[in-house]
Amino acid sequence: MSQQSIKRVVIIGAGFGGLFAARTLAGKPIEVLLIDRNNYHTFTPLLYQVATCALDPSEIAYPVRRIFHNNTNIHCKMGEVTDIDKTHKTITIEVNGEQYLEEYDYLIIATGSLPTYFGNDRFQANTFELQSLDDAVRLRNHILRLFERAAWTNDNEERKALTTLLVVGGGPTGLETAGALYELYSHVIEREFRGNELLKARVILVEQRSHLLAAYPEKLRQDAFDQLNSLGVEIILENPVTVVAEDYIQLGNGITIPTNTVVWTAGVQGSTAAGFLGIDLTNSNRIPVKTTLEVNGCQQIYAVGDNTYLEYPNGAPYPMLIPVAIQQGVLAAQNILRHIQGTDQKPFQYFDRGIMATIGRNRAVAWMFNRIPVKGYLAWIAWLFLHLLTLIGFRNKLIVLVNWIWNYFTFDRSVRIILD
Amino acid sequence: MSQQSIKRVVIIGAGFGGLFAARTLAGKPIEVLLIDRNNYHTFTPLLYQVATCALDPSEIAYPVRRIFHNNTNIHCKMGEVTDIDKTHKTITIEVNGEQYLEEYDYLIIATGSLPTYFGNDRFQANTFELQSLDDAVRLRNHILRLFERAAWTNDNEERKALTTLLVVGGGPTGLETAGALYELYSHVIEREFRGNELLKARVILVEQRSHLLAAYPEKLRQDAFDQLNSLGVEIILENPVTVVAEDYIQLGNGITIPTNTVVWTAGVQGSTAAGFLGIDLTNSNRIPVKTTLEVNGCQQIYAVGDNTYLEYPNGAPYPMLIPVAIQQGVLAAQNILRHIQGTDQKPFQYFDRGIMATIGRNRAVAWMFNRIPVKGYLAWIAWLFLHLLTLIGFRNKLIVLVNWIWNYFTFDRSVRIILD
Repeated sequence: MSQQSIKRVVIIGAGFGGLFAARTLAGKPIEVLLIDRNNYHTFTPLLYQVATCALDPSEIAYPVRRIFHNNTNIHCKMGEVTDIDKTHKTITIEVNGEQYLEEYDYLIIATGSLPTYFGNDRFQANTFELQSLDDAVRLRNHILRLFERAAWTNDNEERKALTTLLVVGGGPTGLETAGALYELYSHVIEREFRGNELLKARVILVEQRSHLLAAYPEKLRQDAFDQLNSLGVEIILENPVTVVAEDYIQLGNGITIPTNTVVWTAGVQGSTAAGFLGIDLTNSNRIPVKTTLEVNGCQQIYAVGDNTYLEYPNGAPYPMLIPVAIQQGVLAAQNILRHIQGTDQKPFQYFDRGIMATIGRNRAVAWMFNRIPVKGYLAWIAWLFLHLLTLIGFRNKLIVLVNWIWNYFTFDRSVRIILD
Repeated sequence: MSQQSIKRVVIIGAGFGGLFAARTLAGKPIEVLLIDRNNYHTFTPLLYQVATCALDPSEIAYPVRRIFHNNTNIHCKMGEVTDIDKTHKTITIEVNGEQYLEEYDYLIIATGSLPTYFGNDRFQANTFELQSLDDAVRLRNHILRLFERAAWTNDNEERKALTTLLVVGGGPTGLETAGALYELYSHVIEREFRGNELLKARVILVEQRSHLLAAYPEKLRQDAFDQLNSLGVEIILENPVTVVAEDYIQLGNGITIPTNTVVWTAGVQGSTAAGFLGIDLTNSNRIPVKTTLEVNGCQQIYAVGDNTYLEYPNGAPYPMLIPVAIQQGVLAAQNILRHIQGTDQKPFQYFDRGIMATIGRNRAVAWMFNRIPVKGYLAWIAWLFLHLLTLIGFRNKLIVLVNWIWNYFTFDRSVRIILD
């Protein structure tokens, strides 16, 4: 194959979708440019463990250049994509205030999702998110600092707000975060504050619906509720959030809860990059794609993962889950190779292994292959091993394992440093 | 002993001096308040490894509350001391904009040191320091970001400045940092940048004196020079820094070196807290103390570690080293106990095990018991074990050991994430 005919694929985003697209193209006779705003891939399912002092940021992040350092056809660069020019087939990247243009023959958009406040964007100013490693470290610093402030104050009302941690959203991230926050308090913080600084912390989970874990069958929803409740987390259902202020939150039923910490896990929407395409997006800002993952109405542009909207043959949308993003990333890359070779592209078919959520030490629920319900210790062990195996990098697997064993047997959370 | 007679010791600073003072007082019939601006103790000798991507911040930091969570007479609080009132025996602490007063019967000042620019404070705006964990993470982020920027730019002059790393100061910290920066470049960065972004990095060490490692005998100075030189670090001696700008540095001989990274390790002075005492300090802002470590002219106030000035019987000052701080911390605590019991206080006697500095993989020099010179692999292994054993916390020891073994055999630096 001559130099002239080598096609250039640009992938925006090194999350699960983009990463697996690049892996699929590694070693193939094409040139790949993988761009991300960070220099690392983030293992997002464990962000809540960074936020709650169980793991270090670098243990769930892996340098993108390192992943592909043996694949000479894959180039990785760090930068923020600010525009897509479909006519000239270029994208604009901003790096340290300078603009750079990169040409593509094929483009894969894999920029993931952002939190949505369902129209109440004013909530954002006083909430914490858990979408990125920066978010997780910010939340960790915030919580640890609040407890240190609570140890000084003589004002009981102030102390209540400082030691009440509120999580909005009854999905897997909400449950995991609430459970881990409660354990951080009851296993670690409570033991180390004493005398007149003794803290009485509350962790509250707020969900607008009448149940937790909307994607799970009724039986497992109840199991999850019971497990979280038995841990010590207070659960408030059927209540929307109406006000989020700096030191309190108000709910639909009029109740006001003093708190300096609101973690928002109530929902996500497609990322901003979708807007650069100049096409109609869905309500939740996602990019509608054909079954081949080509963007509707765009030439040689594919979209994969959370920022993509595609329906099952029965009309239900594919969920915004990592396995969907991975399988779409692989298929988009394969379809590009097929297009280059002039063969037929294949439609997306999701191989669904099921869903799982962890609630705390020895507590979890799983809905395996969407048929088999599992709960408690067994589901928790399954969750641990699955996540450990999916982590990228042998060192990360090893260090996370050491930390998990350490935390399990000592009830400690080792990464409790406030670092700005 | 009745409640009324329980004395209160306040220790400012949870570095090596303050920590060992508190340990000495643990379990004794007195109340101890240990205050630090951070919620953790920092193992400062390994800061350069955090800055050069070999270790995670939390691996060399340990939560202060955790260290003393079994010692009920020791209370730990996070806050910034802003004043000392010798008359009323109180100190002022600022926490989140609020002021708190704490009373003491005995005070130990163990606030350590700050970098000194020897009168050229304007240098500080464009230099990086390595005194705190924040400093180390800031330098790590900066260097990784510069290399990513260098991969984009087409301007060769700009790229030169981005990829030239300069360390000022030929002491142990300067050598360790320069060596580790060179290895970060040659073992990691160089392998992952390719094609037209191929980087040619330089690491330069600048020292004003005619030799490195002023505290070492002539033979070891030369060994250190040779080892650092053979690694690939450029060494410029007998040249003071005259200008530090954002993208270049100028030396006394008129030479200008384009660089965006100047790490300042040229010297330290006593910390600002010394100024709250209202007494005459030394030139380098240190607190003159009696041989019992009581501050000259102050009642029941002790000072230990880097912010303290005390001379050997022969008139030479004790060096600003961790073993001095540790031994002073222990003695100050013991002397307070002796004072409470009405017995004679003891003078400081330094048990000197010698000094060592590491230069890079398999490279180090040691001057054991100030009599036995050791260099190369043997000194390096001794350095590793000594530092591993001195680290606080079993988990930290274990994880640092895993990381060191990993880095040694893979030539990798795992913690290469840019995190603001």
